[in-house]
Amino acid sequence: MSSVEILGFIAGALTTCAFVPQVYKTYKTKSAKDVSMPMFVIFACGTISWVIYGIMSAKPPIYVSNVIIFILAAFQIALKIKYDAKKEKPV
Amino acid sequence: MSSVEILGFIAGALTTCAFVPQVYKTYKTKSAKDVSMPMFVIFACGTISWVIYGIMSAKPPIYVSNVIIFILAAFQIALKIKYDAKKEKPV
Repeated sequence: MSSVEILGFIAGALTTCAFVPQVYKTYKTKSAKDVSMPMFVIFACGTISWVIYGIMSAKPPIYVSNVIIFILAAFQIALKIKYDAKKEKPV
Repeated sequence: MSSVEILGFIAGALTTCAFVPQVYKTYKTKSAKDVSMPMFVIFACGTISWVIYGIMSAKPPIYVSNVIIFILAAFQIALKIKYDAKKEKPV
């Protein structure tokens, strides 16, 4: 593996891992009021495009990391829908 | 420009634009309590790695988009620090 590819995997690992604390925080606090839904929806669409781009340009760090980011973003969207709906219920 | 490169720029535009609604939401609501600080810090580090990777592998869609994402992530971090500090003040 070339040093450029290693750097790509480090970059991919960082941008992928970044989503874990957000998903964890939302899960623990059961609140995602301040989290922007459009952000995660647009980002998820972006990751799909990056996966296709990564495959077409034969860059494993790009498509591998973006597949995982897509899953994490989808999970964040699901949590936000769940907790925002709960907050709207009358107490 | 090749079709792969166009797709890369679409992907880059999506993952870049995704940060705008989050920054805007935080700015408008003046609250970022539910937004994870580690997410944006780790993500910002990731974008720096992607910029270096993009330059080294001569992929403009990667380094161009990640420079902008870095700026937006840094702005989100600054807003979170500002509004979280305000919330901690006694009313």
